[in-house]
Amino acid sequence: MPEEKKPVLFGYYRSSATWRVRLALAWKGIEYEYKPINLLKQEQKSDEFAKVNPSKKLPALILPNGNVLTQSIAIVEYIEDAHPERPFLPKDPYERALVREIVNEIGCDIHPLQNPGLLVEIAPDDADKRSEWARVHILRGFQALESKLKAAGKTEKAKYCVGDNVTMADFVLMPQFYNGRRFNVDVSELPIINSIQEHLMTLPEFKATAPENQADCPQ
Amino acid sequence: MPEEKKPVLFGYYRSSATWRVRLALAWKGIEYEYKPINLLKQEQKSDEFAKVNPSKKLPALILPNGNVLTQSIAIVEYIEDAHPERPFLPKDPYERALVREIVNEIGCDIHPLQNPGLLVEIAPDDADKRSEWARVHILRGFQALESKLKAAGKTEKAKYCVGDNVTMADFVLMPQFYNGRRFNVDVSELPIINSIQEHLMTLPEFKATAPENQADCPQ
Repeated sequence: MPEEKKPVLFGYYRSSATWRVRLALAWKGIEYEYKPINLLKQEQKSDEFAKVNPSKKLPALILPNGNVLTQSIAIVEYIEDAHPERPFLPKDPYERALVREIVNEIGCDIHPLQNPGLLVEIAPDDADKRSEWARVHILRGFQALESKLKAAGKTEKAKYCVGDNVTMADFVLMPQFYNGRRFNVDVSELPIINSIQEHLMTLPEFKATAPENQADCPQ
Repeated sequence: MPEEKKPVLFGYYRSSATWRVRLALAWKGIEYEYKPINLLKQEQKSDEFAKVNPSKKLPALILPNGNVLTQSIAIVEYIEDAHPERPFLPKDPYERALVREIVNEIGCDIHPLQNPGLLVEIAPDDADKRSEWARVHILRGFQALESKLKAAGKTEKAKYCVGDNVTMADFVLMPQFYNGRRFNVDVSELPIINSIQEHLMTLPEFKATAPENQADCPQ
């Protein structure tokens, strides 16, 4: 009997956008083949990878039928649409909006401002300045997010971004928090966000998909 | 008989994120009250507006029951979830993903890099440098998008971003194209995108919601 074809994920262990997709796949229990693309070596800009994603960015997911998906948030939404079991979006439209609000608060207002591509443009020859820029912008974005979570009734004992379940907001928060730690963001100023990430990292899907547990993570 | 309560949209005529929401509301035929917040006067940073959106950003939509939604893409998704008639997302999960791919290609990878807040940080005292930064980054993003549209089979006669109908991808493309024109992006390099926006601007919902037709647009 031929083996069932698996989706193929092109990613990088430390790409936070890739981690979002690893989380969605893990949450649904979908097995996949992982093809590392080394961002440090600019492998995403190769002609070969451009055939997968003409935008030359990670992640990309090739479905078993050959269709290619890109843009991490679109891929995560697809995984929910195509695999309704174990949902990571609530049913109620307003609650869904609250989840997507946090997804976009991070995906549109924090993540793009600390992306390696932008950092290199801002300070091509000054690694300290790049790190400081990233730290300041992640902190600023997290402060806005913390105030939103507080306004929504979340406390320093919060376990999830929205309600009492894992949602796709958590899939986006956790990788961004990891980036924040890399850039020495002071988490003592972010008690709600910190409480959520602490809880999330106790869950097997978050542990298994963490950067340090990927095949392409250096020893 | 009491008048039915309408949603309230806080926005700015030239805010491209607000235009996305105006388009979604217009497409569904939802009447709303419009409360202009002047970004040039930094009105979004007032204590009063912070009560509406603690992130102090536009747009925000107050629903008739008092619930507040922020983040334009989350609001547009909400409008589709809560008002399924005249859909602007396809039914098929893969086609939905193609729409959201373009939404995020613009919303995460182009729009944040030309946002006024970032431009001021990059060149606080140099308006020419700010405009040039915006022009370069919008063009770069549009070139990536143009190559994706081409790979998806779109031609110089394309009418829509995905398939043969208006989708939320068009609600995000049109405002970004408008910004591109403001910053003198050379559209001759972008025949597919240009063809789509030309067609979109023939549709009554796109005309009525355009910046120049808003109450807060200066004469």
